[in-house]
Amino acid sequence: MADCLFCGIASGEIPGDIVYRDESVLAFRDIDPKAPVHLLIIPGKHIAGVDKLEAEDEETIGHAMSVARRLAAEHGVSESGFRIVVNTGPDAAQSVRHIHLHLLGGRALDWPPG
Amino acid sequence: MADCLFCGIASGEIPGDIVYRDESVLAFRDIDPKAPVHLLIIPGKHIAGVDKLEAEDEETIGHAMSVARRLAAEHGVSESGFRIVVNTGPDAAQSVRHIHLHLLGGRALDWPPG
Repeated sequence: MADCLFCGIASGEIPGDIVYRDESVLAFRDIDPKAPVHLLIIPGKHIAGVDKLEAEDEETIGHAMSVARRLAAEHGVSESGFRIVVNTGPDAAQSVRHIHLHLLGGRALDWPPG
Repeated sequence: MADCLFCGIASGEIPGDIVYRDESVLAFRDIDPKAPVHLLIIPGKHIAGVDKLEAEDEETIGHAMSVARRLAAEHGVSESGFRIVVNTGPDAAQSVRHIHLHLLGGRALDWPPG
């Protein structure tokens, strides 16, 4: 989608530190990391947020979660632990209206989660 | 799975304040809520965590995310915003080794998320 930062990263028009890509999702490092490992996993398809998920998107989002498993292992946090966070809308301060899974690991994470 | 708290809630052997159920997932209120709306969405199938997700589970987990959309709307936080959190392993203090999506909403959520 035009004017979408993450669509721009997916298409290569905007630079991103991409660590993974397959036919439906990609992952890159968060530019303002909040943990030693802080990646964003996004679908290539523009989906604004969880509040806009359609049944046809379930497979892609489930795949993004299983890519999180793979990336946690590759980045050394599978055993130590990690947190997936998906923000939607104003109260969660969703920064980009293209659904993205934060993967945070490499330090102890507090509770509540914000 | 025997001795799994969330399998017990899914089967009805252990009481839970269930707010949603379909053929693959269910949702219930967190017993120690950290926001005005704090639900847990789980697959009926026992999957220990994101670190154990198999390709065959992607559809179920994606469906759990789209159920989050529905529950956010039903609980009045779709517009105001909400956060999905999935803890895995020690650093995230995963409390029950049966994968669960926290859905938190109804207040402003801080960043970083723990």
